[in-house]
Amino acid sequence: MTERPESPVLDNPGSDRVKSVRALSGRSARRRTGTFLAEGPQAVREAVAAHAAGTTTTGEATTTGEAAGVVRALYLTPQAAERHGTLVRTALDHRIRTVRVTDRVLAAMADTVTPQGMLAVCALRDVPLSAVLDGGPRLVAVLDRVRDPGNAGTVLRAADAAGADAVVLTSSSVDVHNPKCVRSTAGSLFHLPVVTGIDLSRAVEALRGAGLRIHATSGAGDLDLDDLLDDPDAPGGLAGPTAWIFGNEARGLGEADLALADDAVRVPVHGRAESLNLATAATVCLYASARSQRRGTGCRTGRAQNPHGARP
Amino acid sequence: MTERPESPVLDNPGSDRVKSVRALSGRSARRRTGTFLAEGPQAVREAVAAHAAGTTTTGEATTTGEAAGVVRALYLTPQAAERHGTLVRTALDHRIRTVRVTDRVLAAMADTVTPQGMLAVCALRDVPLSAVLDGGPRLVAVLDRVRDPGNAGTVLRAADAAGADAVVLTSSSVDVHNPKCVRSTAGSLFHLPVVTGIDLSRAVEALRGAGLRIHATSGAGDLDLDDLLDDPDAPGGLAGPTAWIFGNEARGLGEADLALADDAVRVPVHGRAESLNLATAATVCLYASARSQRRGTGCRTGRAQNPHGARP
Repeated sequence: MTERPESPVLDNPGSDRVKSVRALSGRSARRRTGTFLAEGPQAVREAVAAHAAGTTTTGEATTTGEAAGVVRALYLTPQAAERHGTLVRTALDHRIRTVRVTDRVLAAMADTVTPQGMLAVCALRDVPLSAVLDGGPRLVAVLDRVRDPGNAGTVLRAADAAGADAVVLTSSSVDVHNPKCVRSTAGSLFHLPVVTGIDLSRAVEALRGAGLRIHATSGAGDLDLDDLLDDPDAPGGLAGPTAWIFGNEARGLGEADLALADDAVRVPVHGRAESLNLATAATVCLYASARSQRRGTGCRTGRAQNPHGARP
Repeated sequence: MTERPESPVLDNPGSDRVKSVRALSGRSARRRTGTFLAEGPQAVREAVAAHAAGTTTTGEATTTGEAAGVVRALYLTPQAAERHGTLVRTALDHRIRTVRVTDRVLAAMADTVTPQGMLAVCALRDVPLSAVLDGGPRLVAVLDRVRDPGNAGTVLRAADAAGADAVVLTSSSVDVHNPKCVRSTAGSLFHLPVVTGIDLSRAVEALRGAGLRIHATSGAGDLDLDDLLDDPDAPGGLAGPTAWIFGNEARGLGEADLALADDAVRVPVHGRAESLNLATAATVCLYASARSQRRGTGCRTGRAQNPHGARP
């Protein structure tokens, strides 16, 4: 199955194989085939790394790693293959089917205008919520009715940066495997588990059952995020396991959805802006949790050093 | 000059007036005319409010308010005029030229696909840096080589929310009056002063001369933002007047630009993400400053209550 990069270059943009890859820009083909597109070196590198972490070099799934076969096929131009030698070597070592294509074929396959020489067809990333709960999560981001793929991807990237254990997109949210969403995650889609297609109420119930406190963001919330940061160890404070619910970019969370949460929290607005946008508000909340879970009150006396590799 | 909403409805999408408004989607027409487009009820409402704050009802500039004539003309459909009666009344009270147009005319004028029934032609917003410095700013965001209008607008909105006193876009950055940027600010472009077209080194020198400490963000920065939050009152801490420099979305700040700053600060990354995106990283930094300037250490003992209206 594995083609060496020395094999013939795929050069017919009208071929069935090209069309079937291109079709993955649409949701129905993604669901039918169980695959999606990761475009560009950054996303492909993370996809190949996730694949390598989950398989041995003989292509078997490892017992502790991720399910086998994150990457189903890697398409790249000869120039990109040359530029990204380590990436290609890793792919071949882990028996990823690697196919050289012309620029025109790559352009015909891609959703992006400039996929920078490569794309990978990958297995869908979503996992059941139960798989997340088995890991004893301490920080989870829940997106409800979030419609813009760029916003959803940016929150997923921020959740990864904040050290979150999972992201949940409820059934009314955008498809996380949408190419624009995948791009916005900047590779983070391959870093942390994602749960999709679940009702908000069911997600909240399960997360609460697993010991997480449910905070929802609302401009009219009765708790101020800065107050929560002052007292992370108070009952219901941010030092404990927490799930954040973030609502639709234009309308926020509805009354009924807010009522599902334990607390409604507002991000303080000091100037004259009506609010922050979804992704920036979510990032401020997730970073508040990260700080509270790692540092406690933030007072000089008695605080622990951050154990989680802020990079040197 | 002021047309009552009862005057004839402008109905020729091919007219010179329509073309001259439409041309404001481009930078050269904006610079030539000194005007730009604010599209949709949210932006128009903030534009009209800024206009009203700066003029009397007889159209004179107030002595303390903003320069007269923020809004040069308001175009809206009869349906929008009906739906936004208060807005139209405020506009007419302040002698804003208000013109009813058909849906087709509005679509021909607008850069946005759906301007939701209205747009305003406004005077360019940028002011000289000296005007900002005269106000004794305590928190300023500087964008250097930021190219994406959506990113720039989102940072401007976040700066407004964090209570910043101004935003500076250096000469190598996107035009803040670009329609996509204006939309992303969600009205904040009318809330705080914006400085454009200045060299980074000159901006840094002037800000430092005005007593601000210059922090630059960098993934390789030697200061961790969480450490700065722990000790806001330390020399160079975030409690004092601060300017933040944020660099290009893909490449960040170059060596030479970083060297202009007093400190290079990294936003901690706890998970496996390579970084945050520009707008989310900037928001985390600006909110860290807002918290430090308002709350000090954040320790329960001896902290002051937040004096700045986090909304109830």
